[in-house]
Amino acid sequence: MSAERFADTPAPPYYAVIFTAQRSEVEAGYEATAERMVELAAGQPGYLGIESTRDAQGFGITVSYWASEQAILAWKHDLEHRAARQQGREAWYTRYELRVARIERAYGWQRKDPSKDAT
Amino acid sequence: MSAERFADTPAPPYYAVIFTAQRSEVEAGYEATAERMVELAAGQPGYLGIESTRDAQGFGITVSYWASEQAILAWKHDLEHRAARQQGREAWYTRYELRVARIERAYGWQRKDPSKDAT
Repeated sequence: MSAERFADTPAPPYYAVIFTAQRSEVEAGYEATAERMVELAAGQPGYLGIESTRDAQGFGITVSYWASEQAILAWKHDLEHRAARQQGREAWYTRYELRVARIERAYGWQRKDPSKDAT
Repeated sequence: MSAERFADTPAPPYYAVIFTAQRSEVEAGYEATAERMVELAAGQPGYLGIESTRDAQGFGITVSYWASEQAILAWKHDLEHRAARQQGREAWYTRYELRVARIERAYGWQRKDPSKDAT
């Protein structure tokens, strides 16, 4: 289950967009558009994956991973994505910070679970 | 209120550690250690800030920001931090991914709120 929450990224270097945002209390349209943006991003050239979470106070962090800065710029300029961002500023967010980063190194760890190894 | 959730980072370039993790169901000791690590990190040379959130399923993303890769390495080697990471693997997490990144560019947006401008 948790595997779906983690992005299966390649060996560095690659790029990331770190999007930190405070949701407003406006729900109308948000979930459908958020789902559509995940779907749309996944179809973009250079898309590597996404990790996203948000707490009960509406504070969220979404990190999308990309093969190159060019891929990030192309996604930024996608017209449907631009329209969604505009709606985000008009309704769904009260504040956000967006940072574009180059992933230099990465490592992970996962618990060995004998009960699951047997399945 | 939300201002405390966002890191007040300088103009790029600077560095980030993106820590994506699935919590286990073990609560004992977690909150106290997590708070201590935030306090300890904040006292490290080169620390710039932290943003963190986790949903009801225990999937969390924490991004800490640093002035240099050297600052990140020094924090990685801090003995109390090492001990906490060991506890994390033994008890508090089932999986995590850690990525070290160089922030290349950044921008933010915040809603203008006349009702709050007046206070």
